Amino acid sequence: MLKGKSLNEHQLIKEYFSNIGSEFLLEKNISTGIGDDAAAYKPPKGYEVILSTDTSIEGVHFIKELSPQEIAYRSVAVALSDLAACGAEPNWFMVSLTMQKNDSIWLRNFSLGLEEIAQQFKIPLIGGDTTKGPLVITVQVGGIVQNGKMIRRSGAKKSDLIFVSGNIGNSKLGLKELRKSIPSRKIATRYIRPEPRFDLLNLLLDSASSAVDISDGLVQDLQHICNASQVGAKINIDLIPFSLNISPNDKKRFISEGDDYEICFTIPLDKKDRLRDYILDKKITEIGSVTKELDFIVENNKHEIIKFTKGYSHF
Amino acid sequence: MLKGKSLNEHQLIKEYFSNIGSEFLLEKNISTGIGDDAAAYKPPKGYEVILSTDTSIEGVHFIKELSPQEIAYRSVAVALSDLAACGAEPNWFMVSLTMQKNDSIWLRNFSLGLEEIAQQFKIPLIGGDTTKGPLVITVQVGGIVQNGKMIRRSGAKKSDLIFVSGNIGNSKLGLKELRKSIPSRKIATRYIRPEPRFDLLNLLLDSASSAVDISDGLVQDLQHICNASQVGAKINIDLIPFSLNISPNDKKRFISEGDDYEICFTIPLDKKDRLRDYILDKKITEIGSVTKELDFIVENNKHEIIKFTKGYSHF
Repeated sequence: MLKGKSLNEHQLIKEYFSNIGSEFLLEKNISTGIGDDAAAYKPPKGYEVILSTDTSIEGVHFIKELSPQEIAYRSVAVALSDLAACGAEPNWFMVSLTMQKNDSIWLRNFSLGLEEIAQQFKIPLIGGDTTKGPLVITVQVGGIVQNGKMIRRSGAKKSDLIFVSGNIGNSKLGLKELRKSIPSRKIATRYIRPEPRFDLLNLLLDSASSAVDISDGLVQDLQHICNASQVGAKINIDLIPFSLNISPNDKKRFISEGDDYEICFTIPLDKKDRLRDYILDKKITEIGSVTKELDFIVENNKHEIIKFTKGYSHF
Repeated sequence: MLKGKSLNEHQLIKEYFSNIGSEFLLEKNISTGIGDDAAAYKPPKGYEVILSTDTSIEGVHFIKELSPQEIAYRSVAVALSDLAACGAEPNWFMVSLTMQKNDSIWLRNFSLGLEEIAQQFKIPLIGGDTTKGPLVITVQVGGIVQNGKMIRRSGAKKSDLIFVSGNIGNSKLGLKELRKSIPSRKIATRYIRPEPRFDLLNLLLDSASSAVDISDGLVQDLQHICNASQVGAKINIDLIPFSLNISPNDKKRFISEGDDYEICFTIPLDKKDRLRDYILDKKITEIGSVTKELDFIVENNKHEIIKFTKGYSHF
């Protein structure tokens, strides 16, 4: 819990973290939030609790050019993205913050980012921990889905269609822009502020047989679906939506290196009609289909097979 | 979730983390554990979910002399201690591990510590995250209490008796021992393996009006009870149980600097009889009482007042 490790830390937490999203405590069934040894929470009847955690580190998940507010927003957003991929409605979050020093300006700014995302998704901050050390931010998120309705990686079936949300490579393009001397704010924002796709929840719960957050790269994460579902997949790189005209090499890189907080999902053929409006809005794009054979194939319009060596590795 | 950030990391997680405490998934109502974007969990009817998180850092929460197995055990134990203080039965845990390199011997050893504590408290590891960076371990724990039965810091009333579990200073004595060239294993263990006091759950749920984990120091954490309950306290330092004959100065230090994962709690006067067996076993000790006046007073047998400057500070 965000409890005091010293009078200073106690005051710090009281000042910067105790009221973030607190107006949502009641509607999210949190009976005890920040300020005790632990938080207390009760999912509504007929629902399961969905839990996930994500750690963000400077130089890996965010860069020093980001403001503390942007770091806070991004760290929570990437954790929430896992809930969206499971079809879960977000309910609350906890933040474990390790930082070198108790810098009140930095903390004020950081808390603004937490408040921003708390307001956007109507979720309270219900706890966490602050410790001294190199900047590391671990965010735990909790959400709910109706009993048995969680969308898993393991539900894809032969002949299902494969879709992806949004445009691929946005995050990398945003990051590249951000490193320019005079970055375009609009493009940089794609890296700074990934948007967890809760706007797709109804679609996913209604139609998806499997789903995954593609933060590790579309190719690798779709392979996770294939492995978990014991199926293969064939996708067409020329169908994959990119923001700009980019080179074939960049396309390959963008779909294998990731950092896009979009969702790849599969649907049974007969549910395609239900997705029409989303397809017309270009919110989602059909990129291939699930195969019985266990091979994972990426080809282009000319049916040439694209080879990949490996996905992004953290080690 | 402990999802793959790369093939290597995916394999690493599969090899070292995917089956820790997995035999308890069913009895703890976990329908999805490690291997998806998130875990799914349902508390039993009539219960609330209790949630907490704690970050452990080398040099602050553990020292480099500890083996990876001991680091893992200790990191989970200190997080569980918060659940015990709330009267919650532990149900599951998640581990976010940031480490410099993918070292299979270290990881194997680390996973043994997770398995050890999973077995001891019959809790499955249901998720987490692995990232590259300085060694930081964040552990989230979840437990349950019957609706409305969570023990809070805010329930202490005037004239309640104040108790503390175990002996104070054990952790500091163990740490000192560990730094000797030939440490006594038995004494060092007190630092290495703090035991979350789930053995006191029935007592706490039956009798306690408030409780707190005293990992920040008895004095500071009891003050948290006083602040939350809007009461004062008077305790007698000569009643506080210490392991060895130690100097008055060390006594002062041990009760103000903490790192003992014991519980300080209050009970209404008329419930004292229920605690008799625990008192006789020296599992708990009465050290003072709650006062209406908001002052926090530590005195000795001679009614001399002991002064404290401040508690332990992380910053």
